[in-house]
Amino acid sequence: MSFQNPVFIPGPTNMPEVIRKACDMPTIDHRSPSFAQMFRPAAAGVREVLGMSPTAGEVLILPATGTGGWEAAITNTLSPGDRVLAARHGMFSQRWIDLCRRHGLDVQVIEAPWGEGCPVQAMGEALAADREHRIRAVLATHNETATGVLSDIAGLRRAMDGAAHPALLMVDGVSSIGSVPFEMVSWGVDIAVAGSQKGFMLPAGLAILGLSPRAVKAMEGANLRRAYFDLRDMLNSYSGGGYPFTPPVGLINGLAVSIEMLKAEGLENVYARHHRIAEGVRRAIAAWGLRPCAARPALYSNTVTAVVAPEGFNGTDVVTLAASKYGVAFGVGLGEVAGKVFRIGHLGSLTDVMMLSGLATAEMCMADLGWPVAPGSGVAAAQEYYRSTALEEQRVAA
Amino acid sequence: MSFQNPVFIPGPTNMPEVIRKACDMPTIDHRSPSFAQMFRPAAAGVREVLGMSPTAGEVLILPATGTGGWEAAITNTLSPGDRVLAARHGMFSQRWIDLCRRHGLDVQVIEAPWGEGCPVQAMGEALAADREHRIRAVLATHNETATGVLSDIAGLRRAMDGAAHPALLMVDGVSSIGSVPFEMVSWGVDIAVAGSQKGFMLPAGLAILGLSPRAVKAMEGANLRRAYFDLRDMLNSYSGGGYPFTPPVGLINGLAVSIEMLKAEGLENVYARHHRIAEGVRRAIAAWGLRPCAARPALYSNTVTAVVAPEGFNGTDVVTLAASKYGVAFGVGLGEVAGKVFRIGHLGSLTDVMMLSGLATAEMCMADLGWPVAPGSGVAAAQEYYRSTALEEQRVAA
Amino acid sequence: MSFQNPVFIPGPTNMPEVIRKACDMPTIDHRSPSFAQMFRPAAAGVREVLGMSPTAGEVLILPATGTGGWEAAITNTLSPGDRVLAARHGMFSQRWIDLCRRHGLDVQVIEAPWGEGCPVQAMGEALAADREHRIRAVLATHNETATGVLSDIAGLRRAMDGAAHPALLMVDGVSSIGSVPFEMVSWGVDIAVAGSQKGFMLPAGLAILGLSPRAVKAMEGANLRRAYFDLRDMLNSYSGGGYPFTPPVGLINGLAVSIEMLKAEGLENVYARHHRIAEGVRRAIAAWGLRPCAARPALYSNTVTAVVAPEGFNGTDVVTLAASKYGVAFGVGLGEVAGKVFRIGHLGSLTDVMMLSGLATAEMCMADLGWPVAPGSGVAAAQEYYRSTALEEQRVAA
Amino acid sequence: MSFQNPVFIPGPTNMPEVIRKACDMPTIDHRSPSFAQMFRPAAAGVREVLGMSPTAGEVLILPATGTGGWEAAITNTLSPGDRVLAARHGMFSQRWIDLCRRHGLDVQVIEAPWGEGCPVQAMGEALAADREHRIRAVLATHNETATGVLSDIAGLRRAMDGAAHPALLMVDGVSSIGSVPFEMVSWGVDIAVAGSQKGFMLPAGLAILGLSPRAVKAMEGANLRRAYFDLRDMLNSYSGGGYPFTPPVGLINGLAVSIEMLKAEGLENVYARHHRIAEGVRRAIAAWGLRPCAARPALYSNTVTAVVAPEGFNGTDVVTLAASKYGVAFGVGLGEVAGKVFRIGHLGSLTDVMMLSGLATAEMCMADLGWPVAPGSGVAAAQEYYRSTALEEQRVAA
Repeated sequence: MSFQNPVFIPGPTNMPEVIRKACDMPTIDHRSPSFAQMFRPAAAGVREVLGMSPTAGEVLILPATGTGGWEAAITNTLSPGDRVLAARHGMFSQRWIDLCRRHGLDVQVIEAPWGEGCPVQAMGEALAADREHRIRAVLATHNETATGVLSDIAGLRRAMDGAAHPALLMVDGVSSIGSVPFEMVSWGVDIAVAGSQKGFMLPAGLAILGLSPRAVKAMEGANLRRAYFDLRDMLNSYSGGGYPFTPPVGLINGLAVSIEMLKAEGLENVYARHHRIAEGVRRAIAAWGLRPCAARPALYSNTVTAVVAPEGFNGTDVVTLAASKYGVAFGVGLGEVAGKVFRIGHLGSLTDVMMLSGLATAEMCMADLGWPVAPGSGVAAAQEYYRSTALEEQRVAA
Repeated sequence: MSFQNPVFIPGPTNMPEVIRKACDMPTIDHRSPSFAQMFRPAAAGVREVLGMSPTAGEVLILPATGTGGWEAAITNTLSPGDRVLAARHGMFSQRWIDLCRRHGLDVQVIEAPWGEGCPVQAMGEALAADREHRIRAVLATHNETATGVLSDIAGLRRAMDGAAHPALLMVDGVSSIGSVPFEMVSWGVDIAVAGSQKGFMLPAGLAILGLSPRAVKAMEGANLRRAYFDLRDMLNSYSGGGYPFTPPVGLINGLAVSIEMLKAEGLENVYARHHRIAEGVRRAIAAWGLRPCAARPALYSNTVTAVVAPEGFNGTDVVTLAASKYGVAFGVGLGEVAGKVFRIGHLGSLTDVMMLSGLATAEMCMADLGWPVAPGSGVAAAQEYYRSTALEEQRVAA
Repeated sequence: MSFQNPVFIPGPTNMPEVIRKACDMPTIDHRSPSFAQMFRPAAAGVREVLGMSPTAGEVLILPATGTGGWEAAITNTLSPGDRVLAARHGMFSQRWIDLCRRHGLDVQVIEAPWGEGCPVQAMGEALAADREHRIRAVLATHNETATGVLSDIAGLRRAMDGAAHPALLMVDGVSSIGSVPFEMVSWGVDIAVAGSQKGFMLPAGLAILGLSPRAVKAMEGANLRRAYFDLRDMLNSYSGGGYPFTPPVGLINGLAVSIEMLKAEGLENVYARHHRIAEGVRRAIAAWGLRPCAARPALYSNTVTAVVAPEGFNGTDVVTLAASKYGVAFGVGLGEVAGKVFRIGHLGSLTDVMMLSGLATAEMCMADLGWPVAPGSGVAAAQEYYRSTALEEQRVAA
Repeated sequence: MSFQNPVFIPGPTNMPEVIRKACDMPTIDHRSPSFAQMFRPAAAGVREVLGMSPTAGEVLILPATGTGGWEAAITNTLSPGDRVLAARHGMFSQRWIDLCRRHGLDVQVIEAPWGEGCPVQAMGEALAADREHRIRAVLATHNETATGVLSDIAGLRRAMDGAAHPALLMVDGVSSIGSVPFEMVSWGVDIAVAGSQKGFMLPAGLAILGLSPRAVKAMEGANLRRAYFDLRDMLNSYSGGGYPFTPPVGLINGLAVSIEMLKAEGLENVYARHHRIAEGVRRAIAAWGLRPCAARPALYSNTVTAVVAPEGFNGTDVVTLAASKYGVAFGVGLGEVAGKVFRIGHLGSLTDVMMLSGLATAEMCMADLGWPVAPGSGVAAAQEYYRSTALEEQRVAA
């Protein structure tokens, strides 16, 4: 492995030096005060990134991946047979539905085309129709990593409020949080699920959850089986500065440093940087004569773009060739859009200059494969955009 | 944090340079062949460490701690209401019982004093009494980290065979595997659970499971709820060289290197080294006029020793003082032996010289606290033992 | 510092992960056999990279920069007032001349325009004119880093032989060795000087010298003052596996790993990779309508290209803007070509994809500064070249 | 190499994590402002450690070892044939004398027994006798690393002043600076020479010089040949934020962090820590019935102790056995005391607990070799001392 070129997968993302060094830590006693000294600022910082209150609700950091975070969200707040409402419009919304079913929940699925966002209106109608309030939770995928679609969580909350429905709102923000605005309090999100390996720029290994006071309260009556993911044990242990089992100390130290980096850059600037990098990618795609999988600009994700292959071409070929010929990693299409798209991840620690190398590579691959794309066109369009939007002194993630 | 002194907690253990560097890896595409190239030798090596067949059964490596490994073991092979037989003789055997109960299993508990090993005879009697074979699994804790007691798993298997009982044998080897002999096949173990942060000398973050063919078969009919820990998904993904979710790539690379180190030293030499380091500790304890919590020499663990405090003294004080005055970490007593013992971890990447610094520190603390211990006595006894057993060219874990 | 974008300075070069990790070493006793075990393969490997005999002559590795290497070369083989013949056609040939004069040598300088190579014919004539053989050494700069010019050392040797002149041939290969072919034996080079921070991909800190048997012999009668750089002390210490003072152990370990990497890739492949990356840069420059400072294709360096700014524009502005607006480092023009050029380093650990990001950046800067350059043109030309020359499975420096 | 045990050589010293990580830096452009931002605080911090004025005089940081620092000191301030006065009482004072002679200086040597300090009175007499002030510089070795002797530099200055002699005072502080008090201004030192690999806890590779205003002035008329070590070039380049050649960026970044660490601990506390660790070693030696090579307590070095072997035993055997049997590095005797002593380095990043492991190892080796030493005696004596002098919350070098 040469580790020379950046990766352009939609996570895990390229890791900054200082975060790698923070994670690479000698062994300490995780029951010592030293551990609490790194855990507390990490947890406090997560509140800011999630748009939580500084004090209300709880933040939980679990040794698991985002999938474990989903499991923790539902098993700690729901009971067997509970109904949940969920939209399916991509691979990750699909997987969460599947996970709920395995845990014995009754999932009411609203279908939407892949490339669309969470169907807020249809969700609202389903909630309004649920007069008995049998639906206990609404599940939404903020950023569908499979299609590069960002959904309107604030709108979903409005639909819930419009239906005066008391269900909990649970949001998968694994590939959005830390890269685009996320506002738990103002959007009325009850549980937000994030992972370490996307906007936080860490290795995989941490599921990060934010719980509203209502979600914390819901833990009392929840009867789904849980032990490793029992958040009550976690909260009990946190109060003593520790964990109910051995925590991944290095990752938590890395999270504390990630938070420092995000705050030093300024969350608004982090989001603006993601937008700028993403917009350059979209300019390139347009110059190539191609289009994103996301159905409308309002749905465009600033963390990942799924590029639709022209008729007669296979998106996966770009990914395979980029890896074998140029040593560059892009993402393949998944599920319904397998072969129909290839995905460019543009989140985390990334500069315009790094992104140009990714676009140049995609362009070379498409040309190699005979796609009807003018060589140089995409790079030139992105260059034009980046030139006109660069700050003289860039505020880059260190 | 100064990171100057080694830790003497019973895990996470001191990490060798090469393992730290293997874990500290830039981001790669976990769906690329590069990942499979590090995963496969890691999994193959785990078979050797567990004493498995090179081909029969399965090895699973989960992004979780050992506790998650326990959960995976039971939820993948058992169904609600199933009876399991378990002994309780320390904190970790206790925790596994509690986890089973949270998952709705019917746990038949055999009590034994803390300081004793798994009560093999009583377990055999309970199995013999179970004529209808309602007991579906027998749970044993190979090394009770709380008391420093190593149990006789081969004996437990003989007891099961003596009772001609078909239950699965599940063994928690978190604090033994990789440091003392473990023989899945010859002991007839069906599921072995290990963690990355003990004998494998890695950070916490991986639960490592070995499954016998019988255990794999048991997955078919098991009805306990599981999703994140569903081993069927894992095995499906493995066949394609991947994971059902983002794996902790650096830890798996580190595991591959850990295996290389253990094999380069030779497993027999690794075990002999652990015995030698541990025996030096025991010589020191005897010279202090103290005794291990483990009831008999046959039960002495080579990975951790719980030292019983003299009447009128509190073991926790040693741990607290060692941390605050000398910057050295030992383990406190847990559960029933809280305050009654302090624990010295002596597993993983450790030399006689490092161990002497730990013994010297414990000795200083006991003297500071007025324990009736002759200063220098323990170190001198350990020195004597280490001198007489050192190889001219030590084969140390690099 | 963000450390996100590669550097495109002509050294120090981007460092591969494995080299960084080899250099980052805990303290060992440099008088122990462990040190000899890393030093010997490093020294042996240097022989291969320099094109030396496996046994004849000597390799010396000094804790200094390349400049220290020059000083060691002359002070160990020459005496006060000795005449040396040197060409001046760039900043580094100029600096070596200056260094000789400070040490009291009589330097006969042959001037050549900056952008030209070593004036082999004029040098030959000067040697032929030196009937009394007062010239004791001929100094040549293999790769003029200031102008991006590679000189013909084999030709210079032929000129020396044509004049039947016995002078020593000393070659500064700091920015060529390890990146382009270098053949001490077949070119008849007596002293070659390299540095750690260019083709060897290490941090600065090592001067690396190869000495022919004749150069070793010349040490006997040399009277220039030397102590720190006295190679006789070094050779005495080497025979015992050590150094006359504390060696930079990590850098020497890194050099051993660098050698392993170069040999694993294959020196021929390393050179081919440098040519390919460099040729892509030259295609881009041509597409921009610009030209290299090097006067003719035969002189083009595969490690650095100095790009001549169009009339009325200042090359330094590109460097300044690239740093401030895009966070990318190029090299400024030095000495006579200050302001007239900017320099693109393309040596060491570099891929086509990384190079494209450098070209894209230069292009953006030139456009920002109003240079008459068609945006996208250079990148497109380089893409075209890289596409047509890429191996399906690239042999990249890991 | 196992890298498990600390080293107890008198340098290079054990490196703290944060310093290793500071040195392990990706490539930056050393001509960029980023470099100046790490260089300036490093240079400013060196002033504090050397006891210089914040503004008068100059600090120079050279890519070389301490030996290179000596060479820079003399070649920049003296001229061929100049007389210097130097004492010889150990290997390093001897080497400096030799270096001066190689550079053509006329060295007037005052002999003193190895184990004695700089013979201040005899030096004063020689200076007083030098009525014509032919002596241009007085050379002193602050800490003789070979014998573990700290000399009285303030006393030497008084002797110079007593003789009203205008010679420059040059002091080798390589193994003292950063570990014991050093006061350039109040001692009237004109040039102090330090190295990176001792009290600064860095890898070898930097020579660090402090020059008084008088020393700076002396550079004007100095005629010894110099180029690589020409401090005028350095000072010229510094004024532009750079170096006359490629600087070792990572080491300089590490030096900046080293300074931060030393200041965070507080120089007084650093010195007190060195004294405490050293005194524990001396207590152990006394308990063994042995004695330091240093002739009197007033000469005892807090950075290294040379332990005199009993009659009929060879000190080198301890070093050899410690390395082969226990994997621990001590220092052998050098020069006149070769075989007569072994050396324990106790400087840099070291805790009492680490030191105890070194003492325990030395004790085991001596017992193995049949030295008349009571096993455990030295450790017990050191434990006693460390216990009684430990701060509850230690201020340890991180």
